[in-house]
Formats: sequence, structure tokens, C-alpha cells
Amino acid sequence: MPVLVMKFGGTSVANLDRIRRAAKRVAVEVAKGYDVIVIVSAMSGKTNELVGWVSETSPFFDAREYDAVVSSGENVTAGLMALTLQEMDIPARSWQGWQVPVQTTSAHAAARIEDIPPANIEAKFAEGMRVAVVAGFQGVSPEGRITTLGRGGSDTTAVAFAAAFEAERCDIYTDVDGVYTTDPRISDKARKLDRIAFEEMLELASLGAKVLQTRSVELAMRYNVRLRVLSSFEEQSDEAGTLVCDEEDVMENRPVSGIAYSRDEAKMTLVSVADRPGIAAAIFGPLSEAGVNVDMIIQNIAEDGRTDMTFSCPVDQVANAKKAMEGAKASGEINYHELIADTDVAKVSAVGIGMRSQSGVAATMFKTLSDEGINIKVIATSEIKISVLIDRKYMELAVQALHDAFELEKAD
Amino acid sequence: MPVLVMKFGGTSVANLDRIRRAAKRVAVEVAKGYDVIVIVSAMSGKTNELVGWVSETSPFFDAREYDAVVSSGENVTAGLMALTLQEMDIPARSWQGWQVPVQTTSAHAAARIEDIPPANIEAKFAEGMRVAVVAGFQGVSPEGRITTLGRGGSDTTAVAFAAAFEAERCDIYTDVDGVYTTDPRISDKARKLDRIAFEEMLELASLGAKVLQTRSVELAMRYNVRLRVLSSFEEQSDEAGTLVCDEEDVMENRPVSGIAYSRDEAKMTLVSVADRPGIAAAIFGPLSEAGVNVDMIIQNIAEDGRTDMTFSCPVDQVANAKKAMEGAKASGEINYHELIADTDVAKVSAVGIGMRSQSGVAATMFKTLSDEGINIKVIATSEIKISVLIDRKYMELAVQALHDAFELEKAD
Repeated sequence: MPVLVMKFGGTSVANLDRIRRAAKRVAVEVAKGYDVIVIVSAMSGKTNELVGWVSETSPFFDAREYDAVVSSGENVTAGLMALTLQEMDIPARSWQGWQVPVQTTSAHAAARIEDIPPANIEAKFAEGMRVAVVAGFQGVSPEGRITTLGRGGSDTTAVAFAAAFEAERCDIYTDVDGVYTTDPRISDKARKLDRIAFEEMLELASLGAKVLQTRSVELAMRYNVRLRVLSSFEEQSDEAGTLVCDEEDVMENRPVSGIAYSRDEAKMTLVSVADRPGIAAAIFGPLSEAGVNVDMIIQNIAEDGRTDMTFSCPVDQVANAKKAMEGAKASGEINYHELIADTDVAKVSAVGIGMRSQSGVAATMFKTLSDEGINIKVIATSEIKISVLIDRKYMELAVQALHDAFELEKAD
Repeated sequence: MPVLVMKFGGTSVANLDRIRRAAKRVAVEVAKGYDVIVIVSAMSGKTNELVGWVSETSPFFDAREYDAVVSSGENVTAGLMALTLQEMDIPARSWQGWQVPVQTTSAHAAARIEDIPPANIEAKFAEGMRVAVVAGFQGVSPEGRITTLGRGGSDTTAVAFAAAFEAERCDIYTDVDGVYTTDPRISDKARKLDRIAFEEMLELASLGAKVLQTRSVELAMRYNVRLRVLSSFEEQSDEAGTLVCDEEDVMENRPVSGIAYSRDEAKMTLVSVADRPGIAAAIFGPLSEAGVNVDMIIQNIAEDGRTDMTFSCPVDQVANAKKAMEGAKASGEINYHELIADTDVAKVSAVGIGMRSQSGVAATMFKTLSDEGINIKVIATSEIKISVLIDRKYMELAVQALHDAFELEKAD
């Protein structure tokens, strides 16, 4: 029988009533003839409680013990979900990560899935079991210890199972009903997308649209897993939610699919640094070592052998960045006249695979912002994304104006 | 290095502060040079919460899923205890049942430990680990599924580890500071015993003294594990608590060690049953099938080929017992004139290994009750116990009078 993977996040299994509601969704798919693998998160709030206990006990905790404690939340949900399905006369059983086994690296608290041998679960499907309920977010290391995949890891668990079992689709049930053209809290014209390409979803996820964990999208893209995001709080049809899929399967043919934003950015400029080979390495090496996530980088045209170097990073990393630059200056690795930090900026991005083939996106974007009187501080582009840094106070205006300019409220 | 097993029950690990306090007790033993195996229960209240969720989800639950859910509480405590010990610079790690492995039968929710191969933990001790923190109450079945040992099972886990590792002693930390000559809530003359024999402890445990799980005492007796019960809420010396040990190690030489009671008993009498071979089997077979725990049995002298049969059972099983007897009568298996149930009785018992060698205990007991005007309804004796059924309203009086009569308030 074809296999379907269904993943339910913390709010979708927050209490016994919601677990029952989720189980009813599973029953619908079982009735269609699927063998279903259900991936569950911990009941919402539980993981935070466990993490709190660990942090209070040991501020610099042994990640192996953190994993042993924190993974217990998913085990509870898995057992309760299996029991709920059994009550509905659906043959089901729960699996903890080590029982499958979900084989991971030993990087505790941030492990990566290496393999999921399907034999054990497939044998049970062959015996008539219809639903395997698997505790998400966890696995087992080569040393036989429990690992976790990092926050949001249950999405990754779901995609990895879909790949390992060659599932027809991987449905991610969450508290939003899909991926939107922009944040509905910022623009009331935001429209749910029926489909979005993996690459677009990756850009949106990395820009802070918190629908899916970035790693799960990367994994889905690599193994070409059809990924659907949909709400567990609404009646669902087969076309509900947003399908994240291969570029060829995306019907829409517009240059821009969505407008993303990131509120807490900072812009830093090193004024008058020597324009010599190796200067970029001398600047960004120390920043990387200091744990600063540098995003955009701009180098001005050199004059008299000196140039200005501008980069952006999250606003809460500005202090670390300053310290790293001052250290590099003190040790003689780099030399600069001044370090200017602008901590009142935001990033707004237009994302769309259509950009590859359609020109004029950048021009439209810059003209729209200009018409609104918004000054652009930094520009960065990739094949399917154009990002600008602007003053934070214009962020919402910029998102709304760009959403209008690219006519994202209109369905194709 | 010699091994010590220390077990902390739910109230002893109820929150992070109490876990820290327990860890300090462990540190004291580590400093003495022991390699320590710590067995932990779930934080108090957690197991009840999990059991509640399972029962609400599925009244007739799959015990395999029950075990998967309910075992998670101990895993949390084990990780937190290991982290707490690490914070005190004591090399420690947690072990879940399947990691040790604690090999059990497949009787889910009531599994029995079959073997605990010590190799994995011993290898870590050899590498310098000083404390293995093991999640109590759980194990793994031959099928690789998680099992639990039934309520109070952590005591049994502790004793089984002490046997497997040939530990010097097994210390059970709980919320009482030892085993008393009787319930201090009933007699303010109750005295803590320094030592008690396994057999006496077994009788007391089966009579409702809730200090230790009966199975753990049986196991300790079989493997001659020195078992100490002591409070986790008091400063401890090496002589604290009560040592449960071999008969030869008990110094006290009195006929009676303790007075136990059981409040909720019922006495049932089948009036005028045929006195023929096989009649006992015909009566107690159906009772056993109905799940009635028959305790005392008395058969009167027969007259004219008929006799009265009296037995006792917990008062909440009277309805089941009646139904079983009426069914057996209806099917012709047995015949009786009348079934009388007296649901207002209590059982009071004097327990002591000294009875074996010292006579007059029964006489003292009967005279004491007679002097207080208490009528004895049923008498049952074993080698080290005399039990009587009396009207429930006299129970406290009987316990106090017997405690006085056997001078249990006096230390040897």
C-alpha cells in the first residue's frame, strides 16, 4: 500500500482532545488506503518545561543528558496517539527513535539523521498494522545514546521518513493553514499560496517565515519529497494548505512569489580599510569565530587604496561583532578608520523562482520603494531573491507596497 | 571499588531542590569510595498524570502503549539527576532501562526482571564514571518494547541491580525514616526498628505497611541483598533507618517485632455446604477466577455431612465474591444454604520471627484482646504471624493494646 507521512506539531497535539482530532485526520487517510507514518511533537509547552529544568539544573549542560530528558515529551505523545487510534479500531503502535531505529550522528542536541532502515516498520505494515506513530525530534547515536535534532526537528524527522519510505507525500499539520505571499499580520492582502518551490520555501524559511524548519526543506528538496503544509484546526480537503514541491510542479508563473522580512537587523560599516588581497578573510574570519551570522556584504569602490566594507547581522550580535573587529584591529590583522553600527534597520526581500527568467523585478522593487520615499541602504541579490536593508520604521510600508506592486493578492 | 545501590522514590525527587538534596547524599557515598548505582522514580505526581492521560484516552488500554507513555517520567528524573551530579563534579550518566539493558518478561505493566547484564555499566565504572543513574520501574521485553514493573517497581529495580552488581547494600530513600513496630499514626509508642528480618518485612508489607514493595523484599531475600530503608529528608548516619536483612543478622530477640493491621477487610461465610472432597476447590476456584484475593480461610467441623466455610477478602471485592458464589451455586458446582457477608471487620496481626522459638505469643494475644472486651471472629496463623479478624471499631484499640502487651516500645 502507498505510504503517507503525517506530522503533527505541538499545538496540534496540545491535549487529549487535539490528539483525538489529529487521529481523526489520520483515520481519513487510512480509509483512503494509505499505510500512514505519523510523526508527533511533544504536547505544546512540555519541551519548554523540560528544557527549563535542564537549564536550571546545569547551565552548561551535558548535551547527552539534555537529549535523554527532552526527548521524553515526544514519547508521551506517541503512546497517547497510538492508543487513540486503537480506540478508533485502527491497528497502530508507537515507536521511539531507538526502536525504529532513527540512526543519527553523535552531535547531541543538534544531531543529523544518517539513516532510517525501514525494515522494522515495514514488517509491521505487512502484518496488518496501518499506522506507525513515531516520536519526532529524536534518534539514537552510534554509541546507543538518545539524540535530538534541535528545535523544530520533528519536521526533519517527518521528511526523512517520507524519503526512507518513499512516501507519496509528507503532510505537515501546524497552526497555520499554509504559506502566504507575506505575513498576514502585516498585509491584509496576504494570500495563501497553493504551491511553492523548494528553493522559494528555503529562502522564506531562512528569512524568518517560521512555517517549516530550514533543514526539513533542504532534505525534502534533496530527496524530492512532496511536502504539504496545512492546518490541523480546519476541515481539510486534498487541496488544502500549500504544497512545497519541485519547481516544475509549480504552476504559477509570476516573477515574485512572496515578500519576506526580518525585523531585527543591524548594518555595520568599517570605514576606510586597506583594499588589499585577503582583507575580506581578515575581517570575516574573526566575525565567524565570534559567532556573528553575517548576512549581506557590500564593498565600496576603492579610492586611494582604501575602501569601506559594510555588512549586516542580527541586531543582538552587534556587541560581539564590535569586539571581534576591535580585537582584529588591536592585533594588527586589519586597520580601519571608524566602525559605524546602524541598529535601526530591517531587511525586506522579494522571493521568486520566476526571477530567473523574468527581468525587471529589481527595477520594479527599487521604483516602488523610491515612490514611497524609502531610502535603500544595502542591496543584495541571489538568483531567486532581492533583499534590501531599509530603516526599520518603513518596514511595514515597504512590505505592503511591494506586495501591491507585484500584485501578489491576485491568484493566477 | 565496592558498589552501593541508592534508590530515591517520587517524593525524594519531587522537584529540582529535592533532586539536589538527593545528589548530595550520593556525593557522600561516592566520597567514601563507592561506585554508586542510583535508581530514580518519576517526580511525584508525574506518573499519576501520565496514567490519567492513558486511562482517559483508552479505558481498556494496550499495556504496551501504557508502558511506553508511563515510563517517560523516570527518564526525566534520571537525566536531571545525572546533570545535578555532573554539576557537583561527579562523573555520572543516565541509563534508560533498554540501554542497560534491564531485560524483562513481556508481561507489560507487570513485567518481571529476568536479567541485568552488568557489562555496560561496569565498563563505564572502569573508565572512571562514579555514578550510574538508572531510570527505575522500567525494562525492555524480548521484542524490544518498553516494559514497566507495576506500581512501586522502582524498589524492585533497585534490589535487582544490587543483586546483579553484588552491591554491598541497597539503600531505599523514602519519606519515612524506617520500619516501625506499628503505624505511628495509631500508636504514639511506635518505635523505629534498627533491623528486621526479610520474612518479617514480607509479612508486614503484605499486611499493608507501604514502606517497600513486596516483590522487592522477596527478591532481596532470595539474593540476600542487605536492604536499608531510610528517610531522604533527614541527615543520615551509617546507622540510620532500618536494615532489612537475614534472620541471623537481626540482633533483637523478642517474640514479636511489630503489630500490623488492615482496615478494609470483609468476612464471608457460606452456611451449610456439603463436606465432600473437592469442595474447597469448587469454592475457591471460582473466587480466584473472579479476581477475589482470599486471605484467611476457616472450615468448621462438619456435622451431618455439612459444614460452614468462612473466608476473608478486601471489602471492595465482596460484590465480585458474591457473584462468583451465586454463579457456582446456579451451575450446581456448589450448594449452600446462605451466604453471609460481614463488611465491618479489620485484621490485626502480630509478626515476629521470634515466634518460631518462643511459645505463648498466641495466648498473650488472645488474653490481651479478651481483657479489652474485643471479640475474635477469625484466627489464622503462620510460622511468624498470628492474625485475627475483629470488629473494625476496635481496630485501633487492639493495635495499641497488643503493642503494650508485647512491650514493643522498649528497645532491646
